[in-house]
Amino acid sequence: MKLTKEQTQEIKDLQSQSNTTKRVTAPRLEEILYEALPILDHGFIRVIDYMGNDNSIVQAARVSYGKGTKKVNTDSGLIKYLMRHWHSTPFEMCEIKYHVKLPIFIARQWIRHRTANVNEYSARYSILDKEFYLPSKENLAAQSTSNRQGRGDIINGGQAEKVLGLLKEDAERTYKNYEEMLNERYDGTVIDDNKVGLARELARMNLTLNTYTQWYWKTDLLNLMNFLRLRADHHAQYEIRAYADVMLDTLKRWVPITYDAFIDYRVGGTEVSSKGKEVLKKLIGGHNINIDETDLSKREWNELMQAFNLKDKLI
Amino acid sequence: MKLTKEQTQEIKDLQSQSNTTKRVTAPRLEEILYEALPILDHGFIRVIDYMGNDNSIVQAARVSYGKGTKKVNTDSGLIKYLMRHWHSTPFEMCEIKYHVKLPIFIARQWIRHRTANVNEYSARYSILDKEFYLPSKENLAAQSTSNRQGRGDIINGGQAEKVLGLLKEDAERTYKNYEEMLNERYDGTVIDDNKVGLARELARMNLTLNTYTQWYWKTDLLNLMNFLRLRADHHAQYEIRAYADVMLDTLKRWVPITYDAFIDYRVGGTEVSSKGKEVLKKLIGGHNINIDETDLSKREWNELMQAFNLKDKLI
Amino acid sequence: MKLTKEQTQEIKDLQSQSNTTKRVTAPRLEEILYEALPILDHGFIRVIDYMGNDNSIVQAARVSYGKGTKKVNTDSGLIKYLMRHWHSTPFEMCEIKYHVKLPIFIARQWIRHRTANVNEYSARYSILDKEFYLPSKENLAAQSTSNRQGRGDIINGGQAEKVLGLLKEDAERTYKNYEEMLNERYDGTVIDDNKVGLARELARMNLTLNTYTQWYWKTDLLNLMNFLRLRADHHAQYEIRAYADVMLDTLKRWVPITYDAFIDYRVGGTEVSSKGKEVLKKLIGGHNINIDETDLSKREWNELMQAFNLKDKLI
Amino acid sequence: MKLTKEQTQEIKDLQSQSNTTKRVTAPRLEEILYEALPILDHGFIRVIDYMGNDNSIVQAARVSYGKGTKKVNTDSGLIKYLMRHWHSTPFEMCEIKYHVKLPIFIARQWIRHRTANVNEYSARYSILDKEFYLPSKENLAAQSTSNRQGRGDIINGGQAEKVLGLLKEDAERTYKNYEEMLNERYDGTVIDDNKVGLARELARMNLTLNTYTQWYWKTDLLNLMNFLRLRADHHAQYEIRAYADVMLDTLKRWVPITYDAFIDYRVGGTEVSSKGKEVLKKLIGGHNINIDETDLSKREWNELMQAFNLKDKLI
Repeated sequence: MKLTKEQTQEIKDLQSQSNTTKRVTAPRLEEILYEALPILDHGFIRVIDYMGNDNSIVQAARVSYGKGTKKVNTDSGLIKYLMRHWHSTPFEMCEIKYHVKLPIFIARQWIRHRTANVNEYSARYSILDKEFYLPSKENLAAQSTSNRQGRGDIINGGQAEKVLGLLKEDAERTYKNYEEMLNERYDGTVIDDNKVGLARELARMNLTLNTYTQWYWKTDLLNLMNFLRLRADHHAQYEIRAYADVMLDTLKRWVPITYDAFIDYRVGGTEVSSKGKEVLKKLIGGHNINIDETDLSKREWNELMQAFNLKDKLI
Repeated sequence: MKLTKEQTQEIKDLQSQSNTTKRVTAPRLEEILYEALPILDHGFIRVIDYMGNDNSIVQAARVSYGKGTKKVNTDSGLIKYLMRHWHSTPFEMCEIKYHVKLPIFIARQWIRHRTANVNEYSARYSILDKEFYLPSKENLAAQSTSNRQGRGDIINGGQAEKVLGLLKEDAERTYKNYEEMLNERYDGTVIDDNKVGLARELARMNLTLNTYTQWYWKTDLLNLMNFLRLRADHHAQYEIRAYADVMLDTLKRWVPITYDAFIDYRVGGTEVSSKGKEVLKKLIGGHNINIDETDLSKREWNELMQAFNLKDKLI
Repeated sequence: MKLTKEQTQEIKDLQSQSNTTKRVTAPRLEEILYEALPILDHGFIRVIDYMGNDNSIVQAARVSYGKGTKKVNTDSGLIKYLMRHWHSTPFEMCEIKYHVKLPIFIARQWIRHRTANVNEYSARYSILDKEFYLPSKENLAAQSTSNRQGRGDIINGGQAEKVLGLLKEDAERTYKNYEEMLNERYDGTVIDDNKVGLARELARMNLTLNTYTQWYWKTDLLNLMNFLRLRADHHAQYEIRAYADVMLDTLKRWVPITYDAFIDYRVGGTEVSSKGKEVLKKLIGGHNINIDETDLSKREWNELMQAFNLKDKLI
Repeated sequence: MKLTKEQTQEIKDLQSQSNTTKRVTAPRLEEILYEALPILDHGFIRVIDYMGNDNSIVQAARVSYGKGTKKVNTDSGLIKYLMRHWHSTPFEMCEIKYHVKLPIFIARQWIRHRTANVNEYSARYSILDKEFYLPSKENLAAQSTSNRQGRGDIINGGQAEKVLGLLKEDAERTYKNYEEMLNERYDGTVIDDNKVGLARELARMNLTLNTYTQWYWKTDLLNLMNFLRLRADHHAQYEIRAYADVMLDTLKRWVPITYDAFIDYRVGGTEVSSKGKEVLKKLIGGHNINIDETDLSKREWNELMQAFNLKDKLI
């Protein structure tokens, strides 16, 4: 990630302000406000603004339950209770806004989370930066043979070199031709004074999907956790997980109590189906059950055994 | 509106805090943060938290348009442009949270605005306050004869007294019987130690729709303006308009530039249909057109004449 | 539930139509289309329209996964896979529309599910029916002592009679006074020709929360299941559960394969937290663990033991 | 647009079915159900399913207004009234589902309409088709000099040839290298049996933004009209307008009465600001006002004059 001199200065200026407010604050999050946290080769995440903290969740829950919540006497106990019982609305009372720089093919996954507000850099108005994502070698994996959607073994040696070469070359050439069609370089210099440039909204179609874009993305705490649950999971594509992992850190700085409950009940938790419960009940009762005695498919059986670390029962 | 001693003290405590933040602030809104602004006989609105200010809208728009926005050189010019051309996403980048106390029949209108987050006082957990809305005499209007949905002339004299008497008496009796069924008074004292009380989730059904409830209500600036456009309009029911009017004041304190654009383009603006445009074009051209020469219905004709203050053309 | 002659005739007319369509159909749901299925004392649910069936989910999933789904060779297998892995978007491809008659205090719970489309009977325009909900005796329960939000033992004898008497009397009196203020009876007859009636938008505030209202409510299959998961649960208030139970039947008629997966993975399933998993692992391993050796609260411990039917371990 | 033999057969099979239903139908829309309507060079739109018709809107409105709507005695009159007064919820009672094939850079614009359900072809699972969008010559325009976001004059001659050549060559080369990295051709044949292919979720990043993708897109009638109002407008990018125009035709077949009202009040209508109204009032009064006597910016002035066809007043 490289920032221009102007960007670095702008971040410094924003960080040096010190305003007074009667609103609640999240001191650990304030420490990194506006900071560009580097991700992948050219991407970043910056927390731009936020609203509320752990206390705002408690406060909203107490409005709902009135005197009925007095019994749960700690904030932490109440937040854990809300998380466990899917009482979701108090978590919607906190809001966060990120500035994200990310490759377009990742932006396309990300945007499928609809309950968020977005302002994306428009390539109809302006020229996209000359930056594209190239995986590092340890992330260059083959198509998985067991999982239609995932990655398998790392690709090595000559084939890896070749792939990286193709990606780099194609991105550079298509970008060069993008400039050619625009009759304008990425830095704004005109190429040929005797020509007009192709409309930006058209020229952009020549760029490859690893070109970086950027946006402001704002969401509430509940939907942020829904996003992180899916995208910080090991099934998620590595490139979006890299963003989710950094966002998990910002979550911890923002609402540390909620973060702990989220890790316990969501990230580290498991769902067990009705049929799966019958299997576990028998195992707890000391019966050595196998798949033929159940209604589970092979895949369901293995997922259940894996969740409870029963490796010798995998089939 | 009456607040308990505890509530008054809590508001004072919240208002006396002075935190430092690197976030942007809205100084005129900070002045009234947490304050209970009285509405109707027992209701109020309090701004509890907010995120962003006019500058956040400009900042988000500039992320979208990149260097393409440099030409619009004032923030005010850019905000007006966004409002005029329905570029809605930058306005979604600001968020506000209210604490509202309001009669249930108004809460039922309000909740139809779905794009908001809500934590309402739950009468399954706790006992509702002994407070109900009684209109003041100047708001006691007859059913409109021209508008199926609105109010007509004020009701006076004996009939007004009678209506107010019935409303008061019924609200008080049903509340008393609510306590009776709960076997508990609004202040928590048990009525008869030898009895159990009816479940709260059941007893509440005996209350009248003018009973006050309360909630935290959080929304973004775009949806707040959508709400205000409809609910601060003179077609809106008086009781919800009373809330919308106070919220308009908070809007002005929060985002003064956006407020001005909103008043000009939305609140004070008019939509003219394709057929209506033809009529206006002829009038501008000096032709003395009448309804028979148009495709407008009587109602459409009158709405158009009214919007342009052509009272002698009303039919 | 009583329907007017006109309503009964209208339903018959709707049901007797036989249109041809190239769209997919759900034959078992067609059987009860438009039928008023009775709920509580005066309520009902009617399926008014629907779009898609089990096959539409499969079709949508296959668009997403392309040739990648060929391996899962049965529709049922694919739907189970989608449900288990929270692949939610294919379920959003089906839509259903209900006509519901329900007490206002239940309508207020229901409307908190925001991702739905609603047209409610407007008491600003028209007079509400003279119908209110009175619980049957077996549903007249005391406030729970263990659960702040729930019901405990049934209330019997004289106290039950008294409660029912109060509910009936208060609803009847407030409705009578509603008519009085409107100067109009529920059937449209004017009471006193020399008087004007109070505006309907005002008079309605005198009604009690057990008055029936009605609405059209339309949602997609995913959000319907979210609704049913919460509202058909035994923690839900009985009165809304009565509606959810009938809707579960309509779900089964509409999308039988999805219904089965929903019952197995959602309704009958359980979530186990990270800490809970450790407890289960030890129990499976044959260790006789007790709460002191865990990080679970007493409540969490009991919920876990209950989910796996380990009654002797409840504390 | 070319369809495979299998696709053509599948469409024929779907179209030849004739199911009976008690639901309302839209006969003119049934005529083209499942049909692939060609757009751009390789794109299409197909209506896959729908729910409701004009009558469903009327029916929903009558539930809301009860006897209060009796006065508006025609369906057309009621629908026009709803449209004019922004009574939006009855329009949400109808739903439609499209299958769309479109270039990725257009898909990225489209997806910004969040209130819709989407299942997109996943390039993590499957290989994208070897199809990319190349503009026809008459759509090859230069960047507009007056509008930062739009197109100006057509680009001709040698420069046009060059642009088209670059777009074609780059798309073909990046696709060829995509196959190379996957070690698999678009038709599934393996290139080199001794190699493993790069994971699909990675290889796709090499494709250009004019590559075609496809999705199922489902939305309600209200949100469809919001989409069409923006995307069938002459300010919209030509490539998305091509889709919107075809969708306008499907709207007309589906809900002809609503379509007429939509064209009159939305598509052909204009918004006039508070300040703009003052200008029009003076013009109607016969005063020859010019911009200096108003508070309008030059841009606002010109937009107003253009809307009312006062070309001699443009400045």
